[in-house]
Amino acid sequence: MKISALQTARAAYKPKLPPGIQGGVKVVEGKQTQSVADQKEIQALFPKTYGLPVITFQAEGQRAQLPAFNVGVILSGGQAPGGHNVICGLFDGIKSFNQESRLYGFLLGPGGLVDHKYVELTGDIIEQYRNTGGFDIIGSGRTKLEKKEQFDKGLEIIRKLNIKALVIIGGDDSNTNAAVLAEYYTSINAGVQVIGCPKTIDGDLKNSSIETSFGFDTACKVYSEVIGNIQRDCNSAQKYWHFIKLMGRSATHIGLECALQVQPNIALISEEIEAKKQTLDDVVNYIADIVVKRAEKKNNFGIVLIPEGLIEFIPAFRALISELNDFLAAHGDEYAKVPKNEQIQYIIDHLSAENSKIYASLPVGVARQLTLDRDPHGNVQVSLIETEKLLGELVGRRLAQLKSEGKYSGSFSTQYHFFGYEGRCAAPSNFDADYCYSLGTNAALLIASGKTGYMSIVNNLTKPSTEWVAGGIPITSMMNMEKRHGEMKPVIQKALVELEGAPFKYFAAHRDEWALSTCYVYPGPIQYFGPSEVCDQTTITLRLEHQ
Amino acid sequence: MKISALQTARAAYKPKLPPGIQGGVKVVEGKQTQSVADQKEIQALFPKTYGLPVITFQAEGQRAQLPAFNVGVILSGGQAPGGHNVICGLFDGIKSFNQESRLYGFLLGPGGLVDHKYVELTGDIIEQYRNTGGFDIIGSGRTKLEKKEQFDKGLEIIRKLNIKALVIIGGDDSNTNAAVLAEYYTSINAGVQVIGCPKTIDGDLKNSSIETSFGFDTACKVYSEVIGNIQRDCNSAQKYWHFIKLMGRSATHIGLECALQVQPNIALISEEIEAKKQTLDDVVNYIADIVVKRAEKKNNFGIVLIPEGLIEFIPAFRALISELNDFLAAHGDEYAKVPKNEQIQYIIDHLSAENSKIYASLPVGVARQLTLDRDPHGNVQVSLIETEKLLGELVGRRLAQLKSEGKYSGSFSTQYHFFGYEGRCAAPSNFDADYCYSLGTNAALLIASGKTGYMSIVNNLTKPSTEWVAGGIPITSMMNMEKRHGEMKPVIQKALVELEGAPFKYFAAHRDEWALSTCYVYPGPIQYFGPSEVCDQTTITLRLEHQ
Repeated sequence: MKISALQTARAAYKPKLPPGIQGGVKVVEGKQTQSVADQKEIQALFPKTYGLPVITFQAEGQRAQLPAFNVGVILSGGQAPGGHNVICGLFDGIKSFNQESRLYGFLLGPGGLVDHKYVELTGDIIEQYRNTGGFDIIGSGRTKLEKKEQFDKGLEIIRKLNIKALVIIGGDDSNTNAAVLAEYYTSINAGVQVIGCPKTIDGDLKNSSIETSFGFDTACKVYSEVIGNIQRDCNSAQKYWHFIKLMGRSATHIGLECALQVQPNIALISEEIEAKKQTLDDVVNYIADIVVKRAEKKNNFGIVLIPEGLIEFIPAFRALISELNDFLAAHGDEYAKVPKNEQIQYIIDHLSAENSKIYASLPVGVARQLTLDRDPHGNVQVSLIETEKLLGELVGRRLAQLKSEGKYSGSFSTQYHFFGYEGRCAAPSNFDADYCYSLGTNAALLIASGKTGYMSIVNNLTKPSTEWVAGGIPITSMMNMEKRHGEMKPVIQKALVELEGAPFKYFAAHRDEWALSTCYVYPGPIQYFGPSEVCDQTTITLRLEHQ
Repeated sequence: MKISALQTARAAYKPKLPPGIQGGVKVVEGKQTQSVADQKEIQALFPKTYGLPVITFQAEGQRAQLPAFNVGVILSGGQAPGGHNVICGLFDGIKSFNQESRLYGFLLGPGGLVDHKYVELTGDIIEQYRNTGGFDIIGSGRTKLEKKEQFDKGLEIIRKLNIKALVIIGGDDSNTNAAVLAEYYTSINAGVQVIGCPKTIDGDLKNSSIETSFGFDTACKVYSEVIGNIQRDCNSAQKYWHFIKLMGRSATHIGLECALQVQPNIALISEEIEAKKQTLDDVVNYIADIVVKRAEKKNNFGIVLIPEGLIEFIPAFRALISELNDFLAAHGDEYAKVPKNEQIQYIIDHLSAENSKIYASLPVGVARQLTLDRDPHGNVQVSLIETEKLLGELVGRRLAQLKSEGKYSGSFSTQYHFFGYEGRCAAPSNFDADYCYSLGTNAALLIASGKTGYMSIVNNLTKPSTEWVAGGIPITSMMNMEKRHGEMKPVIQKALVELEGAPFKYFAAHRDEWALSTCYVYPGPIQYFGPSEVCDQTTITLRLEHQ
């Protein structure tokens, strides 16, 4: 197998660990926890694992030698840079207690546990994946561990492999399921611990205990690199407006962090649009207004950052989608018989007046996408909508109107981009490499300390790693009850961009200047070997949140 | 102005110069040159600048001190990483002969010369742009310098600023125009020299004298970084075929270099497709065949690299476009009156049988694009066609057919990407930073040596810079006569991918293995500060061509 020069050089990097977990440790118990809301319901659902204390590890003497123990690890959901380092830290961690301890990886996500597909992760395998991106060491998948039958089926292979604990590396949903699994195995006295690790490039798994999820740092840096390059091109050619969509449907942390890093002319923040109950028209007019103002200074170019989930945060658009879903569920057969070139008019004729008006105003391509492509449940596939092109087209229309009114005389040419897959499997930055290796090592310590239903956490992350603090937080403490598919479920609260938070406030205080002046910053590619101020800084979001 | 940490650190980098041009120089004349073809015609068109010798510079004593002289510089055409370093090298070069020498930058491309828009590039300005990407120091543009009136208008400002020489940084067309300008100014005894510099990320400006154009190294590394990241994602999730289009219409050097760097499952090389007279069907079947074979091993994922110019290299498709252009030129008014939903059928009914069949087989979206969007000359806008989606859709159709015949039972989901603007303005790699700074310094030496109609060249590039050799090559020696817009013109021969060349041969020898096995390489981001084997290697193309 051919390995790139960078990967070869990077294999030698030794990730840094917080001082508290480098040798022997003492478990320091904090106070008992409560769930963030709905305490009664959550406690009733998690009688065995509710209310446990926060713990931190403090250095004390040498690493204890324990009887060998086996651990299973699962990568769940979308890829995030650093996942391999969590596994490497976990491997080194369990080996530090006993060289005979074994690590099993379940293949292609949680489904591997249920279907008994696994591989033993030996030292030879581990060595190939240190400080690399991707989840390809064992693959990932989106099977949800939710049902008793799955848990029992998993227990069979856990017994067969004599596994003492499972480590589930995932986002909010996967960690919710980890808590359910922990509760279940405790309730049947299975003697199997479950530990979670906070993964997601989206950055929406954070709270008072989790400063950031891993992968967010690296992914945002990759996106900022390419956006910065496009900005430099934009400012050199001075002839295009680049509409750039960024991955992340449920929150705009990526969009906000990239905006802080590159200082674009426009960055849309879904949470703000929702809070202000803006319409699609409002958003289009906001963009068009800046295009006009820049054109007055002969700047017929610019950069717009668009969060992938934008249109689901626009209340009026959400209402349209909802009515479309209901309508097509009821009249899908009839609709299927409408001739192709009459379909759009048919929909316009059958929606409520308000939604009909919005639907009629959409570009034909988007209108078609909304009614033709539906998911297996018959729902409109919002994720397929090319929001960047939708906005570009609508802004173009608005500008044509302004031009006809004599209010605009610039030129408006567009380029479209969508970045997502470019960042999820990048080799982890020094920060993510260290953070992830620490999370994995720390997970081994939580297991050795007999904990279950905990998430592995490392804090004080804006400081050098010599000041990092590792420990565990009961997953139930992050939960509340939310409606999912019509049913109330215990789930980890998703962190959206807070409009009162320091990152958004910084952005809001500067965006008008960035819009009209050209203040582009060009972060360049992630560096692994250079000066510390280039290589070891984490996100601006994290810095602003903890300054 | 906020500057990124990397840009700040990178500003301190001192680009390396070939030993021959660090101090005093001796001009060594090689043999007289001939144009690569059509010698009689080229000589007739360039009586004053034809047949000059190749020259090289050799170190000799100290840099001479000369009377101060002023130089004008122009960035022409698409951005390429390192352009700023050419200008910085030129600035330092002319200052090394006399601190009072001045450098003027013409704004937004060759148009700046004609319209007398310029800025003096002082030391303060230059310092902000060392080792940065982009062309934003003076901007670029695509105005073609072709007419006597433009030359005369340019001469006015040249006189006013007391400019001794112009340096034109551009691709093959811009350097062709530089040669015409040099000939003209010589023929009227204007006393103005013109020097060219070989720029283009496309890599198609190379020949026996020019080993590579600047920017190709950095751009290919940026594309390979993000393709590598997508490959790692692809191999982790194991559920998508990624169709990735890469910039570069007229040659597939970028696609080939990226393929050599990342080892994708499929890379299409336009030059091969043209040479083998393949049809769109052939290409689709080639891809579908590999999808089927990978599916047999349960590998329902893969990577396809597609050159932007692909369909223009497919003879049958080119014939279709040509007939469409002719037809719409003759019947455009009539076509405009055809109702929208009958337009495709109208075209099908009016084309020749062969082209009609191809047109009818296209996905509706592409068929529409081909007849709706036309450029100001009324021609079909081939560059707007989303070739990656066209291929993805047609492969999907082909697979559905194979499935119905029981010859395929995999799953086929696609993701589409297009990379171009991401790489053109990246901060130059060490290689491009050094190469460009050398080209610029060397241009100053060519000016000081009284040369005109020469291109600045640096050779022996696969060796360390201590072995690089700098000099100049008469631009006319790279020319031949080609038909452009119906007229025979002297132009620099474009370098296409040579099917007998070492880079293509290496690719062809390995591609079957890469197709069926998964041999992805993950190059990672450009590094500026690490070990030499990571930071200082140039392209695989260059290495293979000169090994």
